[in-house]
Amino acid sequence: MRDALVAAAFRLFLERGYEQTTVDDIVALAGVGRRSFFRYFPSKEDVVFPDHERCLADMTAFLAAGPDDDEPVRRVCDAARLVLRMYAENPTFSVQRYRLTKRVPGLRAYELSVVWRYERALAEYLRGRFAGRRDGTLRADVIAAAVVAAHNNALRSWLRSDGRDDAEAAVDHALGHVQAAFGAAPVPAALPPADGDPEDVVVVVARRGAPLWRVVQELESVRGRG
Amino acid sequence: MRDALVAAAFRLFLERGYEQTTVDDIVALAGVGRRSFFRYFPSKEDVVFPDHERCLADMTAFLAAGPDDDEPVRRVCDAARLVLRMYAENPTFSVQRYRLTKRVPGLRAYELSVVWRYERALAEYLRGRFAGRRDGTLRADVIAAAVVAAHNNALRSWLRSDGRDDAEAAVDHALGHVQAAFGAAPVPAALPPADGDPEDVVVVVARRGAPLWRVVQELESVRGRG
Repeated sequence: MRDALVAAAFRLFLERGYEQTTVDDIVALAGVGRRSFFRYFPSKEDVVFPDHERCLADMTAFLAAGPDDDEPVRRVCDAARLVLRMYAENPTFSVQRYRLTKRVPGLRAYELSVVWRYERALAEYLRGRFAGRRDGTLRADVIAAAVVAAHNNALRSWLRSDGRDDAEAAVDHALGHVQAAFGAAPVPAALPPADGDPEDVVVVVARRGAPLWRVVQELESVRGRG
Repeated sequence: MRDALVAAAFRLFLERGYEQTTVDDIVALAGVGRRSFFRYFPSKEDVVFPDHERCLADMTAFLAAGPDDDEPVRRVCDAARLVLRMYAENPTFSVQRYRLTKRVPGLRAYELSVVWRYERALAEYLRGRFAGRRDGTLRADVIAAAVVAAHNNALRSWLRSDGRDDAEAAVDHALGHVQAAFGAAPVPAALPPADGDPEDVVVVVARRGAPLWRVVQELESVRGRG
């Protein structure tokens, strides 16, 4: 029933346009009553994004289920992958919706509020993990925003490819940037311990003509000594 | 006239509530006609955020006016400070609006769309600056999102302090995090003599925790300038 309503709605949105389609049109095509529609969807906008509520719940559950010693930035990146997977499961539908959303300002606004809720879910998780640390909420908010931006950059590239590119590879690449900037993964030896001095600096002096690899080698060995 | 409309609107929003106040109520209190209202504000929501259009225009102009060799991350951080200044110019009004916006879902949605436009303005600028560089649009989007998140974290702290804390200090601190993560900040000291002495040296100063790829990237750009 739910799937039939979504299918009927999208058929009409594509044929007539979103604004020109009423809930009555949708239920007539699906062969059900208005009450059935509103049992599943609070409004016409919600039928455009039928899976976000479930995905938000999945994300929250995923974050809550993680072990306490899991690296927090990797964890939120993995949580963001759940959203991508939802889109990638159904490329045709996702691409159609992308085109529709671009044309209808009301749907763009709806989408922004959904994106905001994902971002808050990630930020709340990180705030918990960073609780008691200096600038914990600031770091949590910044990392959550960076993860969402990277995810959406990859998602939009994939949607613009009409779902033909490799979505998982694109998002892995994009989230790799965020992990490199904020996570522990790329430079594990160089990270200060949680209680370490944040002002700890490394100074490398190199001739301008020195080969880059040698400077990097030197840099790594200096950083590793921390 | 514009200011009088904003003052009348806020008086009524605070007395009766936002939803219970009509545009007719506002123009009656301000002693002007409906047409005057709509000359300044496309809708009732717009009167709640009367300065964002000007601030967005200021931000775009500020970014466009920057010298080509300005460090891009610092530039977008400075652009974000324009928004904070707009809030800090009028603490009482900003705090009232913050409380109002928290209570009215429609205003929250409006605010999200405004935040999105600021973020896009910063991202577009960075995309231009990073054009032709690998992952330029990805980096642009991630940095713009991080700047906005840091700014908003500081702004919300200030609003929650009822405008009593030092707004500029809070946002400087927050944006400092973003510059540390993404900007050229970790490598402040490069010593390239003007005559290109083959023995000249490069001094790299990096936080121990800075991601290696970013140090290398900066190192490359410093060496390239020789």
